[in-house]
Amino acid sequence: MIAFPDAVARLSAALGDSPAAKLAAAALIEADALGQPRFGIAMLDEWTADTTPVRAAETPQAVSWLDCSASFAPLAVASATLDLTGAAQAKGIAAVFLRGVRGFGRLAPFVRHLADAGLVGIAGAEGPPFVAAHGGTRAVIGTNPFALAIGTGADRVVIDVASSTATMADIRNARSTGAPLPEGIALNGEGQPTTIASEVAALLPRGGQVGSLLGLVVELLAGVAGGGRDDPKGRGVFLLAFDPEAAGDSIDWQARLAALKSDWTGSGGHWPRGGARSPEAALDDDFAKRLDAQLARISGRAQ
Amino acid sequence: MIAFPDAVARLSAALGDSPAAKLAAAALIEADALGQPRFGIAMLDEWTADTTPVRAAETPQAVSWLDCSASFAPLAVASATLDLTGAAQAKGIAAVFLRGVRGFGRLAPFVRHLADAGLVGIAGAEGPPFVAAHGGTRAVIGTNPFALAIGTGADRVVIDVASSTATMADIRNARSTGAPLPEGIALNGEGQPTTIASEVAALLPRGGQVGSLLGLVVELLAGVAGGGRDDPKGRGVFLLAFDPEAAGDSIDWQARLAALKSDWTGSGGHWPRGGARSPEAALDDDFAKRLDAQLARISGRAQ
Repeated sequence: MIAFPDAVARLSAALGDSPAAKLAAAALIEADALGQPRFGIAMLDEWTADTTPVRAAETPQAVSWLDCSASFAPLAVASATLDLTGAAQAKGIAAVFLRGVRGFGRLAPFVRHLADAGLVGIAGAEGPPFVAAHGGTRAVIGTNPFALAIGTGADRVVIDVASSTATMADIRNARSTGAPLPEGIALNGEGQPTTIASEVAALLPRGGQVGSLLGLVVELLAGVAGGGRDDPKGRGVFLLAFDPEAAGDSIDWQARLAALKSDWTGSGGHWPRGGARSPEAALDDDFAKRLDAQLARISGRAQ
Repeated sequence: MIAFPDAVARLSAALGDSPAAKLAAAALIEADALGQPRFGIAMLDEWTADTTPVRAAETPQAVSWLDCSASFAPLAVASATLDLTGAAQAKGIAAVFLRGVRGFGRLAPFVRHLADAGLVGIAGAEGPPFVAAHGGTRAVIGTNPFALAIGTGADRVVIDVASSTATMADIRNARSTGAPLPEGIALNGEGQPTTIASEVAALLPRGGQVGSLLGLVVELLAGVAGGGRDDPKGRGVFLLAFDPEAAGDSIDWQARLAALKSDWTGSGGHWPRGGARSPEAALDDDFAKRLDAQLARISGRAQ
């Protein structure tokens, strides 16, 4: 067993102990704590000693584009999030478009950081084609998650939704166990619905047309305007933030958020929290062993 | 029969012939031309002689909030769109939050105007509670449309998607004809699924959870951060735009848009165009009569 804050402190130190290192370390370890190791410290496999730090903007930019292909992706996204926080606070609204981003984990921790700073945080990530358009017969976009966070404390909401029902990892798992897939999540190579994992050529969008359009929105922002689409060096990611306090006293957004949460949950709706872990969370011995191995490699002790 | 440009010119003149009047007139008449008269010149019923022009910003603001409750809503949204165009071109990115907005029609013509100006345009509108949360038993948000437009010419995409499958107008129509509703679009007063129009107390989100989250995103932006929620004077609307040209030569977004459109439509996906009408479109005599009546009222000749 290792306590969550201890794990974060150790990984953060190995990554240089900068504010970006702290945010990236917390984001990765949170995924392991949530039982999503695919988005956790497994990302450290991509870390190399010659990784380039992300260039920090000298003055806050309202809109910026960054090629992250030479950087360790979780640090690049964390660094962009920190720069964006300052830019949105200085300008009222700002956005950053990253391209060439390799695996960086979940979006939720990054938009949550923006919410912690009093901002509304919005993000999306495109990726290699796994998901078909609604009505289409082959994969054209990624699972393209979209995230939004606003508020702090009990009222905070963190939305983090993918545009497909299943992931390619779900398909791989089903392939290894031989279990049939649920109906309506995948197509075979002929563009026909299938429940046989080994035949899957494309995932279907979540909720039909609306999930397909959400995936297209993310692709247009992160892939087209951001330049990430079809870049063999990595995916496109966008982060956008604005400061609701700039409205002054005319809008009491905290009170409106609390009232919306009360209406939403009072009617039986689920208020998404983006999987934040309590600081008391602990991780198991298997995780501790994997973390030790990654830290040894980063510190060069493994050679 | 009346030609589309003639109808727009006449309505625009009646509304003062400003750039905002031209945009508002074209937006309303397009809805009638698309066979959506609920979003068309019927909106002119709300026009009154004492309507206040929307205050134009003296200098472009990166983020602004406007109370539109004393303004004619289609002109208010058009005016905000024009101001936003200038602000986004000057600053790289900008957003405006409107509240107290009464019926203004469809979002598509306004985000399309932003795309015509070379920007990426994003918008959403919240409204009175008609739609339940996914898993919820009563209405908590509006049909909350979300729109995005980018590009010009043949590659342009204009997404305009509501977060419910049906509208309250569909329910009213079914109530008057007595026809049963499709399964899975509505709940009764006990929060149970119903196909009986007269029993409908809430609409269900489009595509289940993903449509529910999209509606929540719009509510958090237009209702919470924008201050529109629970305002008895009207709905909340947000408009956001950024300039993809600010990336300089590093991102050829037009080429990426063309390639995405080719992939998307080549696989059988539908490329949404937001219902733009050709300038050659004509409207029928019934429309011409309704337009005459509205113009007579606006010009004071009806009294």
